[in-house]
Amino acid sequence: MTKNPLDANPFTLEFHPSPQPPKSTILELPIPQPQGAKTMPIRVTVWNENRHEQKNPKVAEIYPQGIHGALKGALEGQGFEVKTATLDQPEHGLGGNVLEQTDVLIWWGHLAHGEVSDETVAKVQARVLAGMGLVVLHSGHFSKIFKALMGTTCDLKWREADDKERLLVVAPGHPIVEGIGEYLELEREEMYGEPFDIPAPEELIFVSWFTGGEIFRSGATYTRGRGKIFYFRPGHETYPTYHYAEVQKVIGNGVRWAAPLASADPRVFGNAVALEGK
Amino acid sequence: MTKNPLDANPFTLEFHPSPQPPKSTILELPIPQPQGAKTMPIRVTVWNENRHEQKNPKVAEIYPQGIHGALKGALEGQGFEVKTATLDQPEHGLGGNVLEQTDVLIWWGHLAHGEVSDETVAKVQARVLAGMGLVVLHSGHFSKIFKALMGTTCDLKWREADDKERLLVVAPGHPIVEGIGEYLELEREEMYGEPFDIPAPEELIFVSWFTGGEIFRSGATYTRGRGKIFYFRPGHETYPTYHYAEVQKVIGNGVRWAAPLASADPRVFGNAVALEGK
Amino acid sequence: MTKNPLDANPFTLEFHPSPQPPKSTILELPIPQPQGAKTMPIRVTVWNENRHEQKNPKVAEIYPQGIHGALKGALEGQGFEVKTATLDQPEHGLGGNVLEQTDVLIWWGHLAHGEVSDETVAKVQARVLAGMGLVVLHSGHFSKIFKALMGTTCDLKWREADDKERLLVVAPGHPIVEGIGEYLELEREEMYGEPFDIPAPEELIFVSWFTGGEIFRSGATYTRGRGKIFYFRPGHETYPTYHYAEVQKVIGNGVRWAAPLASADPRVFGNAVALEGK
Amino acid sequence: MTKNPLDANPFTLEFHPSPQPPKSTILELPIPQPQGAKTMPIRVTVWNENRHEQKNPKVAEIYPQGIHGALKGALEGQGFEVKTATLDQPEHGLGGNVLEQTDVLIWWGHLAHGEVSDETVAKVQARVLAGMGLVVLHSGHFSKIFKALMGTTCDLKWREADDKERLLVVAPGHPIVEGIGEYLELEREEMYGEPFDIPAPEELIFVSWFTGGEIFRSGATYTRGRGKIFYFRPGHETYPTYHYAEVQKVIGNGVRWAAPLASADPRVFGNAVALEGK
Repeated sequence: MTKNPLDANPFTLEFHPSPQPPKSTILELPIPQPQGAKTMPIRVTVWNENRHEQKNPKVAEIYPQGIHGALKGALEGQGFEVKTATLDQPEHGLGGNVLEQTDVLIWWGHLAHGEVSDETVAKVQARVLAGMGLVVLHSGHFSKIFKALMGTTCDLKWREADDKERLLVVAPGHPIVEGIGEYLELEREEMYGEPFDIPAPEELIFVSWFTGGEIFRSGATYTRGRGKIFYFRPGHETYPTYHYAEVQKVIGNGVRWAAPLASADPRVFGNAVALEGK
Repeated sequence: MTKNPLDANPFTLEFHPSPQPPKSTILELPIPQPQGAKTMPIRVTVWNENRHEQKNPKVAEIYPQGIHGALKGALEGQGFEVKTATLDQPEHGLGGNVLEQTDVLIWWGHLAHGEVSDETVAKVQARVLAGMGLVVLHSGHFSKIFKALMGTTCDLKWREADDKERLLVVAPGHPIVEGIGEYLELEREEMYGEPFDIPAPEELIFVSWFTGGEIFRSGATYTRGRGKIFYFRPGHETYPTYHYAEVQKVIGNGVRWAAPLASADPRVFGNAVALEGK
Repeated sequence: MTKNPLDANPFTLEFHPSPQPPKSTILELPIPQPQGAKTMPIRVTVWNENRHEQKNPKVAEIYPQGIHGALKGALEGQGFEVKTATLDQPEHGLGGNVLEQTDVLIWWGHLAHGEVSDETVAKVQARVLAGMGLVVLHSGHFSKIFKALMGTTCDLKWREADDKERLLVVAPGHPIVEGIGEYLELEREEMYGEPFDIPAPEELIFVSWFTGGEIFRSGATYTRGRGKIFYFRPGHETYPTYHYAEVQKVIGNGVRWAAPLASADPRVFGNAVALEGK
Repeated sequence: MTKNPLDANPFTLEFHPSPQPPKSTILELPIPQPQGAKTMPIRVTVWNENRHEQKNPKVAEIYPQGIHGALKGALEGQGFEVKTATLDQPEHGLGGNVLEQTDVLIWWGHLAHGEVSDETVAKVQARVLAGMGLVVLHSGHFSKIFKALMGTTCDLKWREADDKERLLVVAPGHPIVEGIGEYLELEREEMYGEPFDIPAPEELIFVSWFTGGEIFRSGATYTRGRGKIFYFRPGHETYPTYHYAEVQKVIGNGVRWAAPLASADPRVFGNAVALEGK
């Protein structure tokens, strides 16, 4: 995979280029749209647990600005308006009107899912149902918010053993794979394997192959209320996964896909007079 | 719809026969199966809130043994082994090994969803994920267990105004509509209307038409873990809906569809050695 | 529904405004996108059988430029680049490089499905599988191309009797309902009813209620290869359905949703060397 | 995988037992059903091209009674009533009332898809839409009947190089995986790899891992009309795949799942009088 020139961190881990590089990059793509349309950037908040970065020098070396910082830079390079929030901030950085001003929330957590307050989880869930997009990354599969939206344990198999991961595209016309070739390759990643205890994805985008003999549904979309959810597997903290341009592109595509409708929610619930015979 | 001869309650509400009666009844159906197979009945537990029956003489007249009693009789008539459980029993009637000995749980609640303990909800959810079938009826859409499995508010529009409901089949080859014609008709029912805040059904079985101008996704299936879930809309407590043979047949079909696999759960989660290279 | 001011045809049929008007119109919507992105209009070809317009003065009065002409005007008003093609043109108007220069094809046919050449159908199907979007309208459900892509008869119930149609939204976060309220109303339309012999939609967007007691899955999406397909029910030729702004908006939303990815198709089929161990 | 004792063919290819053997076999499973139900066997017709068996001594050695003969024996051992039909029989063995007396048709073809008459394909398709189950095996992905039902090219990647295939279960509660562990292993098989140009499966049952680095959606279900379709990947003619008990069990489970409803088709299409206001 090609390294992102926007990221100046000189880490030196090896990686293999994708054998079938995509024909274009996201910044070059013409975006079809109506003439004369007004444009505004999608507002992204990257939420990161930010604990590994404090504890593990290896992680801090790969992500000197934190995983949230790396994702912020990558997404700003794609034209998004990006803020960050972390677990140890007051109200986990999601207080005030942060959620109201977020179109798409990205979620990375691992060690401290249990420390996220139930109140915050409820607020995020309500905002997703109202239309906010949610991109859940890697170990976020076990976050309270993802489990609350899925209704399942979200458990899986895993192994930290420098497996190679190859993410093969199984939804070739989906906007999330815009500009992506037949597959992505990550020379070294944590393995996640089936069974993955999630509801059947509404759209299955990627399936991963691992050296150790496992497969995993590694890109999956769901709708809950008016909100769109994209789960994307890669991103173990000890690998430079989020520095790769193709991974960043998939996340950016996911953000664009998950962005809410521009129009207000017209739904009304509860006791209703008849539409006929009025 | 034809009244169920198994039910001796002489209520006298009018009803209209379905204009396209199904060609066969469930008791006459030959069930294809391997020769020599051992058979055992599916074990059903009907859970009912059982509050309306205590408070409202009209409901008590329609369901003198309670909604749970009516469903028990109907399902025993289809060959199932049926027990009942109600809210005001200790542990809501679901303590001990009741859930372990239940293949399919039927859930009816309305007034007192909040009184169901979180502990019971967690136990039921765990059992569903392990394979127990769940049939959620009517106002059970707002039960804690259904919302926990769906991840959404499960809110909807409603009206009590003697609307006619016609449930049209949109999945004509599905086992849940075995023996059912093009549609079911209920001369008088509570109206439920869209928007219905549920995840897109994995299989949409029925869509209802109401006199007042609304439609509703009234038969829907989901899978969570190894468990199968069937939501079926009809059954407001002030109408004799569960006395109709076709409604009973749909519920019985749903129970059969939702019954768990006979084999043990082979899934193992957590840290895993590689399958290759061992 | 509000009449489209872009259309100057002074037909005088009555219509009822939608009781819950959408909060915004498509021309006012800010379209979120990356900063600095180049833009190009989506290229639409509207294919119309164009026979009713020649035979029936009532249809000619409603659509003096043909159904294709009315749709062309409406879509140009939304910023699309639009061409038309009709059955009686050489190669049905789809010869040369017309399909290669079409991002989304709209299809309306009714009387003469059998006159569309199998060669043309095969070309359109191949182009859809390669990524061209396809919006199939109304009686196009019985077109050769829709049946070829669905694999079913696509048969249904119908009645011409001035039924009222109400299309209720069941996918409230989908881009196809951007700017649409809880439902659309058409005061008079042909009735289409279930059973509708299509594969279960990948996304069910609208369900219609009809005065006569029927329901119909009236907005449905599919993916075939890299191509996206949107079936939208309304549009009987003797009603001014395509002159209504909300109907035009749904079709425009459908075109935007169905537009192909900008990147080239990376897929390679056939005999393949191993990715590992090379 | 364990070899099927019902098959006396003394081929000697090595195979590896599944590391997590299923806890039960299909013949031991108690089949839950209503008490007093009449039973009748499901009628299966195994259709086989039967050309490799005539041309290639290696194939004839593995399948001395043909692939159809091996499957017939295996399915009879599971209690099904089984007939066979082959390409070179008059009307490909599917004339007369064969299809009318078939509940589930199994299809294996490879070299001679083009020799199957369009008339036969149309008859099979009509019978599937009316409710007959269809199990498509391996290279049947390219059969006329599968392509007609899918609407896509059904193309894929492939390689004959003795890859190991591991089919991992991703739908753990589905009847097709009754009695199957977390995965099946085939020590040597032809590789099929993504992209697989099929519509998104309605239910994805298995995903395969291959030694060479590929994955493949190897167990997938669809519904067309009243008919259920199960595509199952394994079964290259030069390997003894269909002699393995677990493969036979999956096929038997698929047959049971795909068996038609016992009740007659209630659907009526065409011009319809209103259900209301009659």
